[in-house]
Amino acid sequence: MARVIVDVMPKPEILDPQGKAVHGALPRLGFDGITDVRQGKRFELEVDEADDATLAEIRQIAETLLSNPVIEDFTVRVDA
Amino acid sequence: MARVIVDVMPKPEILDPQGKAVHGALPRLGFDGITDVRQGKRFELEVDEADDATLAEIRQIAETLLSNPVIEDFTVRVDA
Repeated sequence: MARVIVDVMPKPEILDPQGKAVHGALPRLGFDGITDVRQGKRFELEVDEADDATLAEIRQIAETLLSNPVIEDFTVRVDA
Repeated sequence: MARVIVDVMPKPEILDPQGKAVHGALPRLGFDGITDVRQGKRFELEVDEADDATLAEIRQIAETLLSNPVIEDFTVRVDA
């Protein structure tokens, strides 16, 4: 068994209202010193074996199901 | 400038309807071989310096604002 992590984040040029909301709430809660916050999604996929074919399939899953490639970037990596 | 990553995932014993929905959709889309999927959140926090005081503050932010400690676990790490 192996675990593959897919991180999906809004592209840098795209507005991120969730991240902005978190960032705006921080000073009100007494937290200073955070310059910016961006919020995305993290998926943990369990597979039998993280071989090249499986990773290629997961890249396809990330592109078609887990992210919207117009507004989001994703990364795929095997969990250490 | 440094970037600190906060990953928030549902606790293992907690049902994860979002992950289940993704997992259920995979065979319909022709993807086999994924045993399980769990979905969580990923936050990227920009800070001037990722020193111990800042990381302690971010841990407090993660516990109070970014996660629900009853149903979610979080990890804090400095982005390499």
